[in-house]
Amino acid sequence: MGEFDLIARFFTRTPRAGGPVRLGVGDDCALLQASPGTQLAISSDMLVEGRHFLSTVDPARLGHKALAVNLSDLAACGATPVAFTLALALPRADARWLEPFAQGLLALADAHGCELIGGDTTQGPLNLCITVMGEVPVVDGRSQALLRSGARPGDDLYVSGTLGDARLALEVFRGTQNLPGPAFEAARARMECPTPRVALGQALRGIASAAADISDGLVGDLGHILRRSGVGASIDAERALSLLAARSGPENLGLDDDTALGLVLAGGDDYELVFTAPAAAREAVQAASRNSLTPVTRIGRIEKQPGLRLLDARGQLMDRRDESFDHFK
Amino acid sequence: MGEFDLIARFFTRTPRAGGPVRLGVGDDCALLQASPGTQLAISSDMLVEGRHFLSTVDPARLGHKALAVNLSDLAACGATPVAFTLALALPRADARWLEPFAQGLLALADAHGCELIGGDTTQGPLNLCITVMGEVPVVDGRSQALLRSGARPGDDLYVSGTLGDARLALEVFRGTQNLPGPAFEAARARMECPTPRVALGQALRGIASAAADISDGLVGDLGHILRRSGVGASIDAERALSLLAARSGPENLGLDDDTALGLVLAGGDDYELVFTAPAAAREAVQAASRNSLTPVTRIGRIEKQPGLRLLDARGQLMDRRDESFDHFK
Repeated sequence: MGEFDLIARFFTRTPRAGGPVRLGVGDDCALLQASPGTQLAISSDMLVEGRHFLSTVDPARLGHKALAVNLSDLAACGATPVAFTLALALPRADARWLEPFAQGLLALADAHGCELIGGDTTQGPLNLCITVMGEVPVVDGRSQALLRSGARPGDDLYVSGTLGDARLALEVFRGTQNLPGPAFEAARARMECPTPRVALGQALRGIASAAADISDGLVGDLGHILRRSGVGASIDAERALSLLAARSGPENLGLDDDTALGLVLAGGDDYELVFTAPAAAREAVQAASRNSLTPVTRIGRIEKQPGLRLLDARGQLMDRRDESFDHFK
Repeated sequence: MGEFDLIARFFTRTPRAGGPVRLGVGDDCALLQASPGTQLAISSDMLVEGRHFLSTVDPARLGHKALAVNLSDLAACGATPVAFTLALALPRADARWLEPFAQGLLALADAHGCELIGGDTTQGPLNLCITVMGEVPVVDGRSQALLRSGARPGDDLYVSGTLGDARLALEVFRGTQNLPGPAFEAARARMECPTPRVALGQALRGIASAAADISDGLVGDLGHILRRSGVGASIDAERALSLLAARSGPENLGLDDDTALGLVLAGGDDYELVFTAPAAAREAVQAASRNSLTPVTRIGRIEKQPGLRLLDARGQLMDRRDESFDHFK
């Protein structure tokens, strides 16, 4: 199978009639006509074998994850997915791998109406690079995109879904943790098959004051919001602990608080949203959560004092240093 | 140096005021507001060490080339460059490599007003993935983008600049060819530092009937035009031979016609434009060439009969099989 057969067989689709994609895979460029009254939100993520996924991962799950981590960036901006390009370095052109990979990728793309419009394939160490484009409304000349820079002292601090379970699964693979079979499979699904919070991001437009997606861990990604907004925050440790799905079942699974808190605060690979909203918007946030079928938890608040503080059940400052994931540390 | 220091130090720039980039590097997404009356042309290219460049290449030239091969796709559509994302897998964060790489990349970006708006950095085998975006006018509801599908029987067939010299340099590196020092340096510059024909592409809007960029060799990329247009072509071998810069100097450099023709027809890595235009547009093509300061050569014509034919000086069919480069062959 040659390069162009591979593209034709697995990655060529007809653009949806009447949509913003005017020309898809097959020319030097794709052509995109943004809807009137919108601007484009654009993000790129690259996934490398052994770093973002294990070499043994199910290719269908990998296809899903490669797009999911990109859709998560659109979600963090409140954008509606439109299109994506896929660049793929493969050790070899293996149809038994490419077919399920493409299925997993395109199933998620279809679920979000996000069209594959182009890309590149080449021989090389396995590497997946996706660039995703979404639309954000512009109302009265103002972009409705959620940014990292809008958090204000007094705002509530929220997280969607659950945190820490992806990292817990990775630690089981690494042999530093043990989990019963069903709990491991659940955590593993979080690691290999994350859910981008696209509907929640869109529902939070005009409500959230700031948002980011959690890819490098809560501490790190919340840190981006705090620095760009020029504020600090405090987090309620009990509420943070409740975010680890592996602890919310009937069993405690033998995870002590300290370990569990580390997973929640600095686990990484979660692809949930961390966001802020004025206290007056609590009902609106709950409505956005219900309408998008996405649970959200209020875990703390934004404060004037810079830095991030963790408070115990009695409101006392806890002494911890949780760092975010850094690819070059 | 951590991931975020690296981005801040080498890859963060302030978007040009009043331009289409409304938010650059530093949030979950960049924001782009396309100019009224335009659509976006989008393309991705991935470069892998050992396949698209040698591990010994000057990092400044590599930065140039990574963007140049993407701008070449915009050129083939007649698009005006606007912005790009850069995803980078690096074995290590080495400032002595990153600094010249970023300089080479951003010097070409600045020369084309193409802004770096986002991307990703991760640890892994060296891999560069760029997604580039450009604007194409839409006039009376019709896109002015040059496509591969518009060639018609009777059209003239043109190529910009020179062909085959990049491959000649690669063959010197491989030890299958020898060149005197200055000729080698000239050929090597073509391989490592290609010139995207952006100004020519824009000048050909409304004149060329079809266009593609030559990355996998003339035979292969012209083949895309022929298939998508449902036509064939004949090429004048003498004119094709004149495209090899290494043969146009005072010395013949010992390259026989057969070898030289192979380099021109199937060399690859040229990043010139192959395009077609009605015979009535010859003056307009020459004007586009002059105005864009880009030489073009008429090398043949489009015919109704499918396939590609090579004609000798007497107009006789030559028997050759030149194939295009395929990453999985």
